Amino acid sequence: MKLASLKHGRDGRLVVVSDDLAWYAEAQHIAPTLQAALDDWDALSPSLEALSTDLAHEAIPMRRFHERLAAAPLPRAFQWADGSAYVNHVALVRQARGAEMPDSFWHDPLVYQGGSDGFLGPRDDIPLADESWGCDMEAEVVVVTGDVQQGASREEALAAIRLVGLTNDVSLRNLIPGELSKGFGFYQSKPASAFTPVFVTPGALGARWEDGKLHGALNVDLNGKPFGRADAGIDMTFDFGTLIAHLAKTRSLGAGTIVGSGTVSNRGSDGGPGKPISDGGVGYSCIAEVRTIETILRGKAETPFLKGGDTVRIWMDDDKHRPIFGVIEQAVATI
Amino acid sequence: MKLASLKHGRDGRLVVVSDDLAWYAEAQHIAPTLQAALDDWDALSPSLEALSTDLAHEAIPMRRFHERLAAAPLPRAFQWADGSAYVNHVALVRQARGAEMPDSFWHDPLVYQGGSDGFLGPRDDIPLADESWGCDMEAEVVVVTGDVQQGASREEALAAIRLVGLTNDVSLRNLIPGELSKGFGFYQSKPASAFTPVFVTPGALGARWEDGKLHGALNVDLNGKPFGRADAGIDMTFDFGTLIAHLAKTRSLGAGTIVGSGTVSNRGSDGGPGKPISDGGVGYSCIAEVRTIETILRGKAETPFLKGGDTVRIWMDDDKHRPIFGVIEQAVATI
Repeated sequence: MKLASLKHGRDGRLVVVSDDLAWYAEAQHIAPTLQAALDDWDALSPSLEALSTDLAHEAIPMRRFHERLAAAPLPRAFQWADGSAYVNHVALVRQARGAEMPDSFWHDPLVYQGGSDGFLGPRDDIPLADESWGCDMEAEVVVVTGDVQQGASREEALAAIRLVGLTNDVSLRNLIPGELSKGFGFYQSKPASAFTPVFVTPGALGARWEDGKLHGALNVDLNGKPFGRADAGIDMTFDFGTLIAHLAKTRSLGAGTIVGSGTVSNRGSDGGPGKPISDGGVGYSCIAEVRTIETILRGKAETPFLKGGDTVRIWMDDDKHRPIFGVIEQAVATI
Repeated sequence: MKLASLKHGRDGRLVVVSDDLAWYAEAQHIAPTLQAALDDWDALSPSLEALSTDLAHEAIPMRRFHERLAAAPLPRAFQWADGSAYVNHVALVRQARGAEMPDSFWHDPLVYQGGSDGFLGPRDDIPLADESWGCDMEAEVVVVTGDVQQGASREEALAAIRLVGLTNDVSLRNLIPGELSKGFGFYQSKPASAFTPVFVTPGALGARWEDGKLHGALNVDLNGKPFGRADAGIDMTFDFGTLIAHLAKTRSLGAGTIVGSGTVSNRGSDGGPGKPISDGGVGYSCIAEVRTIETILRGKAETPFLKGGDTVRIWMDDDKHRPIFGVIEQAVATI
């Protein structure tokens, strides 16, 4: 089942979307918003699944689905916790600035809490007041959970995953060192993230969803050119079950919690830093990583951060080359 | 006007509470929840104010208000951003561990994003799975904002403050060093916070609300004994307008954002560390601060962190010695 929220008010209007993303059916009579559906998932999801089946059979009124009319599936959420599960990415960034990475990073997940009071839709501009802040995209996998009890095991955490999607976790790189040096983590350096037009139930992902990981190439294009094709199922040190269990160690998680994987990153085929797509590699899921590798290889970063007018596309294809979650396609708009 | 949410479902049931906290009137016909009222504040708050006036005149059906039946005014929220506005507190903690405090801390606010997917009510137990985590209370002032535009000035930020209240920002002190050393800030060390039974509009606070600060003694009792009487209006380096403008530098804030002051802390009358109430001082708003001062004065911390069965009370009285926001009164329950 694929779910989306059409732009409407603060929380959108819940619709069920066909597998090929061409059609949608209103789901208002079941739940007005995706948050409302998640709040009462066990009772409501069978009706949503039935609607999805009817839609597939063209047995009900349906309308054309336009990704540009979609808000983020959760236009605002009660929690957005983002991990750094691709430890390869963290190791590279540290290497570039000559900082040692503690060995614990390989077995104790890094997470931070991001702003969830307002997300960008998949076609919304990235508003940027100051180019010197060093705006970057970060292509990631996300899951949405139901209620998770404090102390949940990895298996209980996996069972609580309701939906899977992708995000562009926009970051302001040049504000990060100052914020992190203060010791309290990110705030100003993490403005609103954008999400794919639809989120998908794990059951509808088939073999793409296995062991708490999403498998397949995460496509990132920058200004119309292929920039990243890293496989989200490879080099993910912590699967989503492990991430969620980490989050639930000392506190329960409310239904509708969004958990991010952190920037997807694959090692190079030789085990070292990954290569650009133009050199036969799988490229990168954020600009900071290519700048890091440029710094390691050539002594200085060359690829600039995002400027007004730059465009970013993020999506993942199914085996028939159709976007599973739709496409995040954003331009940077200086404000 | 004083607003509360009676326990009901995930988001509570909005009621207007009398100034003396003895009576309430249902506000369901105006807005089902406090979040709904905040989402459309300009349109709905005049009706809520009218209801409040009618309640004061006993002109409408009213019922006894019992604080134990109240949830947190926002039982869950889309954002909970907590500052460290009482820099005195930060300076002391640093001094105790022999770490220097950058001078920038006096003019650049420290903030972190806390979990907002589920808050504790004013009488709810503090659930604690492991006493070795070092459970602590933190008595703070909070405000709830309307929508705040990215780039808002301090004055615009002040105008966006809708409600004022108090929180017990529960912290797991022994988990903090490990988390902060990883560089991404707090997560596991900050379980659910509790809030006072009612939040109050700034206009109803009279002289207690001035210059973006709440003025008056913040009372903290630990196990039935006076522990803190620090004045929230004193030694607050950053007022709420400055804190909110800091938060809005790179992103807008959604209606219903809760902003915290950080632990309230007053210097001693000699400008040095504050003294315990038993020594004629105003005491402390968290255990970590008294432990810090014990460490500075006597070489080691003596006051233990919270254990199962310990109780915490947090409130602020008006000039007639009646709690303005009601009382947070919690016991620690090992689970």
